[in-house]
Amino acid sequence: MGFAFSAAQIADFVQASRMRGATTDMISGVASLTRATSGDLSFLGNPRYRSDVANSQASVILVPPDYVGNPRTGQCYLEVSSPSVGLAEVCARIEHSLWPRPKAGMHRSAAIGENVVIPESAMIGPGCVIEDGVRIGERVYLQAQVFLGRGAVVGDDCWLMPGVIVAAECTLGERVRLQPGVVIGSDGFGYEFVDGRHAKVPQIGTVVIGNDVEIGANSTIDRARFNKTSVGDGSKIDNLVQIAHNVEIGRHCIVCAQVGISGSTTIEDFVIVGGQAGLAGHLTVHRGAKIDGQTGVNSDVAAGAFVKGSPCLPYQLEQRINVLRQKLPELFRRVDALESQFGDSVQEKTSA
Amino acid sequence: MGFAFSAAQIADFVQASRMRGATTDMISGVASLTRATSGDLSFLGNPRYRSDVANSQASVILVPPDYVGNPRTGQCYLEVSSPSVGLAEVCARIEHSLWPRPKAGMHRSAAIGENVVIPESAMIGPGCVIEDGVRIGERVYLQAQVFLGRGAVVGDDCWLMPGVIVAAECTLGERVRLQPGVVIGSDGFGYEFVDGRHAKVPQIGTVVIGNDVEIGANSTIDRARFNKTSVGDGSKIDNLVQIAHNVEIGRHCIVCAQVGISGSTTIEDFVIVGGQAGLAGHLTVHRGAKIDGQTGVNSDVAAGAFVKGSPCLPYQLEQRINVLRQKLPELFRRVDALESQFGDSVQEKTSA
Amino acid sequence: MGFAFSAAQIADFVQASRMRGATTDMISGVASLTRATSGDLSFLGNPRYRSDVANSQASVILVPPDYVGNPRTGQCYLEVSSPSVGLAEVCARIEHSLWPRPKAGMHRSAAIGENVVIPESAMIGPGCVIEDGVRIGERVYLQAQVFLGRGAVVGDDCWLMPGVIVAAECTLGERVRLQPGVVIGSDGFGYEFVDGRHAKVPQIGTVVIGNDVEIGANSTIDRARFNKTSVGDGSKIDNLVQIAHNVEIGRHCIVCAQVGISGSTTIEDFVIVGGQAGLAGHLTVHRGAKIDGQTGVNSDVAAGAFVKGSPCLPYQLEQRINVLRQKLPELFRRVDALESQFGDSVQEKTSA
Repeated sequence: MGFAFSAAQIADFVQASRMRGATTDMISGVASLTRATSGDLSFLGNPRYRSDVANSQASVILVPPDYVGNPRTGQCYLEVSSPSVGLAEVCARIEHSLWPRPKAGMHRSAAIGENVVIPESAMIGPGCVIEDGVRIGERVYLQAQVFLGRGAVVGDDCWLMPGVIVAAECTLGERVRLQPGVVIGSDGFGYEFVDGRHAKVPQIGTVVIGNDVEIGANSTIDRARFNKTSVGDGSKIDNLVQIAHNVEIGRHCIVCAQVGISGSTTIEDFVIVGGQAGLAGHLTVHRGAKIDGQTGVNSDVAAGAFVKGSPCLPYQLEQRINVLRQKLPELFRRVDALESQFGDSVQEKTSA
Repeated sequence: MGFAFSAAQIADFVQASRMRGATTDMISGVASLTRATSGDLSFLGNPRYRSDVANSQASVILVPPDYVGNPRTGQCYLEVSSPSVGLAEVCARIEHSLWPRPKAGMHRSAAIGENVVIPESAMIGPGCVIEDGVRIGERVYLQAQVFLGRGAVVGDDCWLMPGVIVAAECTLGERVRLQPGVVIGSDGFGYEFVDGRHAKVPQIGTVVIGNDVEIGANSTIDRARFNKTSVGDGSKIDNLVQIAHNVEIGRHCIVCAQVGISGSTTIEDFVIVGGQAGLAGHLTVHRGAKIDGQTGVNSDVAAGAFVKGSPCLPYQLEQRINVLRQKLPELFRRVDALESQFGDSVQEKTSA
Repeated sequence: MGFAFSAAQIADFVQASRMRGATTDMISGVASLTRATSGDLSFLGNPRYRSDVANSQASVILVPPDYVGNPRTGQCYLEVSSPSVGLAEVCARIEHSLWPRPKAGMHRSAAIGENVVIPESAMIGPGCVIEDGVRIGERVYLQAQVFLGRGAVVGDDCWLMPGVIVAAECTLGERVRLQPGVVIGSDGFGYEFVDGRHAKVPQIGTVVIGNDVEIGANSTIDRARFNKTSVGDGSKIDNLVQIAHNVEIGRHCIVCAQVGISGSTTIEDFVIVGGQAGLAGHLTVHRGAKIDGQTGVNSDVAAGAFVKGSPCLPYQLEQRINVLRQKLPELFRRVDALESQFGDSVQEKTSA
């Protein structure tokens, strides 16, 4: 599996206004300026990284027309009005070549309910089960063994990989990609303790997933107790993540693997949550905040803050405390010494 | 998706002996007294919460006949001998209206082994696979793509959602609800290190799930090395929980998302385990204990105890230590100051 | 479910050169010397445990010919040149009796693509989906509802349990056992932040699993960004583990449940990772290192080291600090006392 594009092909994809230098390398990867190696495409998307261009090992670099500098021998710069847009365009081409769209149609083994909307452009793979009242958008690809519950809605150009389950009434926006084994719309975990037993509180809300969301393998998103659990446009969720009922995740967030977000917590836009972090319920993590891996969040997090630890503290403070924590054996010895010295001192003084 | 019942309908469901006040609100939700809003049903299940009734925003509240007080305008109290039992009755009605039982029968795509017991009242959905010797109870609902291994037993009125896997010889009690992707009966994780390799120790036990158990999406429960791994009646397990071989979970426990319980650990009745907590193996968590989220448990927990931290301590102590931990930078400065002052003191004294 | 072998049968399996003592117990379990009880087989695999033989409650014990000592009444020692090899042989027999190989063949409901290689000895269960170009080895057992993506390769004697997903181009060695719900080859989690959105970096590598690997239920292993994510021969991975793109796991490692390993981290041979541990990306855990449960690893771990805590420290130091941490309330009081005493001292001295 792989791809290989010439610099000329890349120039064509991004509609480059000018090419500086030349390379015979075939492009078979994409990486940031500092991580790229020979055979990679990179790009100067943010002027802040301007100084990284000269040292980048990428074979082809997308730069804005005003970038001053020339490539090394065997390296090529492509001028493009927006390198970022250009990069996205190339990535889309790569995806397309790696995962060619299968032919539209429905496998004979799919089980389809009543009052279902499936356009001719959709591809319904083997073993899929589609319950009554489901509506599927144009060019949707249900790869295999996908389950869509009663009344679920799948927007245009979604790709649901094998074993994905979208339960009743849940909705996906456009271009959503669900990795294998994702569960959308399992019941929220809600009980009232009644007469010595946990009586189930019916979970009657849904899950609403925005456009351009991607969710990782075997992650689970529970339906709301009321109303909806939601994930905003452009957010990306990694594998084995748990999102509880009535959580609201904003736009363009990153949620790394094995994170757990408890009920009714709100994550605003552009938040980043590191792997295995856990968030208590009924909190708000404000816009642009960053939560380190394994962090335990039990109160609101301010916009732009970076927190770490369990329970979490500001990142720098937590780091400082972790250093001091290692010196606890020494600190105890120092206090022992002070106590014994102080005793001596008192004794000396008394005896003086 | 939703429901709407009038106060009169609720009164009928719970066989209310008397109605105080009146409301035209349709009931479309259930909540505790303090969290309820207009349109909600609530209840006074425990006299301890008596004072919360007067301020509750619920449209309808179930109260015992001896409750003194009258509803606000547009609010209704229903007298019922056991408000808790009444609530459970209403919840069952709501569930029934939300998730009407599908027609009994078997989808043509189901693959059924030999010597299988499937009553006529059962509903076997598309893509289900039932191996030899499986026994299924009355009104069991295998929604879709469910797998039941050789000799598995499923009690009456169970609902197994799409993609659920119950491996060979495992048994479910009655009214068990398994959310999508649950795996019951995967092999326990057991090896002996022999000649530089991990030789698999055969896992020959089973899993036994009690009545009224609910297990969340993509959770996994391993079969025992010998004998059985078990979950007691009425216990509720959230998503992505791992329960290792030979774990015994008692009755009416709550195990939140992403908890991991290591092999041969016993959880007695009425225990609550917070999200992402981890329990080492061969421990006992005694009756009614509570384990906070992200806690690491590496020794027995006493009945009724509340523990927190990794490794865990009594909750209050852990909280106290977490406060002091934040003062470590200050403590180090204080000890620095003492040392330098003491030095001065000695110096002064010496020079005196 | 179970098995029962007589001592004579065991002697035959291991080709024992001599039998000391005798037992009428039927062997129905396998356990280490100290944990074994009546009805168990045990073994002296490592001379270090020689002293455990005499007190072992096992009914049958495999010992090397030079072991000095005699069994208790009703107990039997079997002499065998390598007790470890003997044990592995017995375990294989037990497995075979517990999980008899199903008859070769393909269920009518399996959906098979083009250019697929499936030998006659393979067993393809109901609901399996095999995409184009897949190659399956001899005696492979796809139990049910398994998905094999385009170009995937499955080595001889693999057993893929229900609901397993192996995505395009991924390869499994021989004798690999995948528990239910395992996902191999989901996309790595890689994005570049471009113009306020996360643009997907195509994940064009694969996953390569070695021989004799076992992976637990609902675990996920992402395909590489480039090249491959890999798991070496003989490594065993528990349930709900997340292995990110370009991780390399060596041979004969143990990775316990709910561990998360971030991208491009290398785990060398014979490493043990405890449950719920999290490893940051781009690290190396060197040969034979041991990582305790819930540990957070954010830097390289030396060969043979044992680390604990988050962020992790050497095990003994972390244990020491955890003890001192509990004494923080006392330490603060001691420093308070020193400060007030010191004040007194100064005062006394001054007033003297």
